[in-house]
Amino acid sequence: MRKFTLLLVAACLSVAAFAQQALGPGTGLVSPQINPDHTVTFRYHAPKAITVQLTGDFLAARPIEIDMGGQKLTYSAPGLVDMQEMPGGFWTYTSEPLPGELYSYTILVDGHKVMDPSNIYQIRDVSTWTNYFVMSSEPGDKGWYYEAHDVPHGTVSHVWYDSPTLSSQRRMTIYLPPEYETSPSTWYPVLYLLHGSGGDEDAWSDLGRTAQILDNLIAEGLAKPMIVVMPNGVWYNRAAPGAAVNMFQPNFENSRSQSTIEIEDSFPDVMDFVEQHYRVAKGYANTAVAGLSMGGRQSCMLSLHYPKKFGYVGLFSGVATPEGNEAAFKAVFAAKPKLYWIGCGKDDGVMVNSKKLKDWCDQMGYPVTLYESEGGHIWRNWREYLGIFVQELFW
Amino acid sequence: MRKFTLLLVAACLSVAAFAQQALGPGTGLVSPQINPDHTVTFRYHAPKAITVQLTGDFLAARPIEIDMGGQKLTYSAPGLVDMQEMPGGFWTYTSEPLPGELYSYTILVDGHKVMDPSNIYQIRDVSTWTNYFVMSSEPGDKGWYYEAHDVPHGTVSHVWYDSPTLSSQRRMTIYLPPEYETSPSTWYPVLYLLHGSGGDEDAWSDLGRTAQILDNLIAEGLAKPMIVVMPNGVWYNRAAPGAAVNMFQPNFENSRSQSTIEIEDSFPDVMDFVEQHYRVAKGYANTAVAGLSMGGRQSCMLSLHYPKKFGYVGLFSGVATPEGNEAAFKAVFAAKPKLYWIGCGKDDGVMVNSKKLKDWCDQMGYPVTLYESEGGHIWRNWREYLGIFVQELFW
Repeated sequence: MRKFTLLLVAACLSVAAFAQQALGPGTGLVSPQINPDHTVTFRYHAPKAITVQLTGDFLAARPIEIDMGGQKLTYSAPGLVDMQEMPGGFWTYTSEPLPGELYSYTILVDGHKVMDPSNIYQIRDVSTWTNYFVMSSEPGDKGWYYEAHDVPHGTVSHVWYDSPTLSSQRRMTIYLPPEYETSPSTWYPVLYLLHGSGGDEDAWSDLGRTAQILDNLIAEGLAKPMIVVMPNGVWYNRAAPGAAVNMFQPNFENSRSQSTIEIEDSFPDVMDFVEQHYRVAKGYANTAVAGLSMGGRQSCMLSLHYPKKFGYVGLFSGVATPEGNEAAFKAVFAAKPKLYWIGCGKDDGVMVNSKKLKDWCDQMGYPVTLYESEGGHIWRNWREYLGIFVQELFW
Repeated sequence: MRKFTLLLVAACLSVAAFAQQALGPGTGLVSPQINPDHTVTFRYHAPKAITVQLTGDFLAARPIEIDMGGQKLTYSAPGLVDMQEMPGGFWTYTSEPLPGELYSYTILVDGHKVMDPSNIYQIRDVSTWTNYFVMSSEPGDKGWYYEAHDVPHGTVSHVWYDSPTLSSQRRMTIYLPPEYETSPSTWYPVLYLLHGSGGDEDAWSDLGRTAQILDNLIAEGLAKPMIVVMPNGVWYNRAAPGAAVNMFQPNFENSRSQSTIEIEDSFPDVMDFVEQHYRVAKGYANTAVAGLSMGGRQSCMLSLHYPKKFGYVGLFSGVATPEGNEAAFKAVFAAKPKLYWIGCGKDDGVMVNSKKLKDWCDQMGYPVTLYESEGGHIWRNWREYLGIFVQELFW
């Protein structure tokens, strides 16, 4: 009779699966299919569609020019291609060979965005959901670092803390390195890692692949075991969507609403909590701050306000300008930071100010590293910067 | 000049936001809109569409009858309604008033499933993504328990452990109750909580709202502070999609592939890790196991194999039958469990076996609770069962 139970349960689940097919997955198609030559084939079934298109960050970008009050800005939108119709209403597209990377894409059916129902891997960037896949051509390429391998893994924790300054409970994400739990007498250096406009405390762990990058680099001996703290830097949003289901819909606009409370004022609440709850090796030489875009600018401002707190500073596609901050920058470099690092894409609008800060620091004799990557204001760069930056920390 | 920096960054981000609109969000529509009378309005813009439909678990279910080799089974698929076209190509639908609950839905445009681009809240059930929203009509209704309120919050951690039995590193999710970090001399009872077919270690924390339910019940004094351990019960899948990007596409079928290793064999690896890494109050009276569907059956089998390990057992829509297990059940009840609890929906195919087990236990004089809810084999019920079950634990 045990067999009967199994059969009944199996039948019940098959029916559930069948019924759910009407809503999406279970297509029987393989998409995306990563081919041996590193091309990728996408498939979608739409017998009645007139056009089916694919948009993704691995396709030739479409430059979009915008006039912002007389100032022309060019933004690189993800590329867009037509998928080809095959017999039976199947649409397909095969990419060029792709280097190792995490790629995102969606499908447009007669202009309507659909998620690829054959691929359950989806990720959110602020208010945009896309499918994604990881191409890892060979061990050691960038894609490889974004996957979990058979190495010791750290722990990713979502914790809440009280912020008296912001009068709210807030959520943060914390990466504890492998062996943290089993090495109770070891105290670890800490990297505070800040997201961009509209982001939240899940951005760096999800899109940024922080845990995978750190696990892999630590296993190779290329990064020191460290704690990484990823707080929520949007002052009026206490937690990422889903963690505190309040139907708050983030976007770039509302995240820029001005608070009268600056990051410099509220950040001590984050550090106090972390230093009280975790085995943190405190002090200048054991404390780093870095962030992307808005978080890069916040990291810069934090370093200016607390020149003796952060021995390592990383500004990813976001800086403060020297003008008006000359005295503060002087104090920063008087403390002799171990590393003051700027990363920016050649096509990124922030490059103008990144170069301006770098040039000014050069003139002043302040040691600053400027790393210029390809591309623009995109996660692909921020993952790369994180991987480079953390290798320089705490030696 | 600081103003200039801000302006440039702002401009750059606006452009990014604009460009991303082509891919989805930023519609300017409010959807879903939760109205004061507890109805919900959905909106979608599709000027060229012929039909736009809404499917959701708050709509009258569609019974789908399936013939499984002569045996007729009825499955309740989420309801489906036509949205109404308004001037300008806007489509809209307003629901009946809804009781407090977490609801899921998607939109079908000319038959193609699209996620509501005005709502970034999405959730995955095995291989099906849906939008969702929480209706909380008043404090204390079910929806209220699924949201984060201003109460002390526990920590949700994603950790990896070695399973020598399964020869792999595996990921599990662990809920630590509020005050765990600040009460180093307190040892906590533990609930092992198992997912269903095709699920993974994120299912109970995401769909199941475990942290929110526990936080709220603990704050009210209705549940004891406890550790909740949510392992991955699919033997050949080491981690949820995204945690170990390996493009593994879970479905109900592949999760039922038979392993030669039973849950009884591999489960000690989970318990050993938890007892070594956390302040666990061990022993029969401090240990509970519960699960849904496949995880309910696993919980039952674990209780039968380790009759003196679990003082509390919860079988949510999944049981083992008494036949062939008579001696094992005798040993279970000889140990005098504090609670042996079955929850099942009246429309659930598993109800037959749930009742059979209950009736047989009644005949044998074994104290078993059978809680019959409305509805079928659905998360709405499993969240409810969890909320009921945890209130009975560890007093």
